[in-house]
Amino acid sequence: MPRVFKPVDISKEEKELRKDYFDRHTPHVICESEVKRGDKFKVKVVIGDEYSHPDDHDHYISTIQLWNRETLIATASFSSGMLANQKSHFEVDFYIIPSVSMNLTAMAVCTNHGLWQSDSVEVKVVD
Amino acid sequence: MPRVFKPVDISKEEKELRKDYFDRHTPHVICESEVKRGDKFKVKVVIGDEYSHPDDHDHYISTIQLWNRETLIATASFSSGMLANQKSHFEVDFYIIPSVSMNLTAMAVCTNHGLWQSDSVEVKVVD
Amino acid sequence: MPRVFKPVDISKEEKELRKDYFDRHTPHVICESEVKRGDKFKVKVVIGDEYSHPDDHDHYISTIQLWNRETLIATASFSSGMLANQKSHFEVDFYIIPSVSMNLTAMAVCTNHGLWQSDSVEVKVVD
Amino acid sequence: MPRVFKPVDISKEEKELRKDYFDRHTPHVICESEVKRGDKFKVKVVIGDEYSHPDDHDHYISTIQLWNRETLIATASFSSGMLANQKSHFEVDFYIIPSVSMNLTAMAVCTNHGLWQSDSVEVKVVD
Repeated sequence: MPRVFKPVDISKEEKELRKDYFDRHTPHVICESEVKRGDKFKVKVVIGDEYSHPDDHDHYISTIQLWNRETLIATASFSSGMLANQKSHFEVDFYIIPSVSMNLTAMAVCTNHGLWQSDSVEVKVVD
Repeated sequence: MPRVFKPVDISKEEKELRKDYFDRHTPHVICESEVKRGDKFKVKVVIGDEYSHPDDHDHYISTIQLWNRETLIATASFSSGMLANQKSHFEVDFYIIPSVSMNLTAMAVCTNHGLWQSDSVEVKVVD
Repeated sequence: MPRVFKPVDISKEEKELRKDYFDRHTPHVICESEVKRGDKFKVKVVIGDEYSHPDDHDHYISTIQLWNRETLIATASFSSGMLANQKSHFEVDFYIIPSVSMNLTAMAVCTNHGLWQSDSVEVKVVD
Repeated sequence: MPRVFKPVDISKEEKELRKDYFDRHTPHVICESEVKRGDKFKVKVVIGDEYSHPDDHDHYISTIQLWNRETLIATASFSSGMLANQKSHFEVDFYIIPSVSMNLTAMAVCTNHGLWQSDSVEVKVVD
């Protein structure tokens, strides 16, 4: 089964030792914490923070998903070479219109190292 | 975060009570248990066993993935209405050529009820 | 076969008569016309200009693709309801690193009205 | 723009000269020509006939789509290596329930050689 990797599942010692490995695979949801009901809302997902991921033909980030709780909102699929085969941060911006408050999570697929999950982000919808 | 639903995570009592709900969302990997190295190998994924899932525009199985351990092999994405808006078993056959023994798992996305995972299936590659 | 719809394929008279129909389905590639080699480059794809498209469960924009000539760079797939079932402009930002000059085209799939293609956009890579 | 390649667009002379190139990229829809209304219906899509396509990390068939006229029914996305990096026929079986007579077309994306289209297949729905 595809284990889902998440920063919190990993012991502090292992995190220190393999910090770059965890960092460059972890997706981050970046957005405002509040949105006016009915307004378009930008949600950026970016992979990695201090460390960036290779874009090799046999090793790259192929998929980024955005979930609101149990609902898959949007998926981006990439071709290798999109980042000129350089190490970089895979990144996509989705645009949604929230009708109720959300709990957003991103997931990412590395072609060699499986399924990774971001921390969740609360977004409040206000009138 | 999208919880991953799996038959084994559910208590026996809840399973009895909500048997149809769990049954109609659960993916199953159906294939031979052995394959000759280099031969093409058919892997069927079917959703549900005794119970079948609606194909409504606002409630259907949108995605089926086939994983070998941490590696995403193939994804099928469906449009609602593909099954004439009838209750039925969403189904796809993938064809792969295994080079080493595999541990296959299917995952499925229901547009209303999240991410579901099959039991894993061992496939032995023989010479 | 899925005809590919494109503004230029349509007679002037038909364009006038069905202006809103063509407008709200047509993808647009929005980006700078020049990029420094090796720099990350944002490419927005937005559907429709004066008119916006419904986000109904049985009628929405399900897919946006970004192509560089014959190469599929990235695909975004959406779930209905992502835009709160309101009429709006489906939109996504991709981030790429160009190594050679590009000719970008977007394609979009409407669940009811087929495959649509943008005008192409030239992007020059400079040192 | 991504030209859509199709056997009929190509001159007889060019077809002879580059027969293997056209053959190994062309998708084929394989199914019965008649189906009882409401019955599940298997549609195989296979790429190539006499010639098979590489499965290299930088050159493989990444996507197969099944269309009924202007409606995208289902998409399969593959990871490179799925066919053990051997030359083979990329292949998938979709299962649909037709409610009206169909005109099916498959499209395929080669990561190096663009978008290819099958001949169309008429399927009659009978009572």
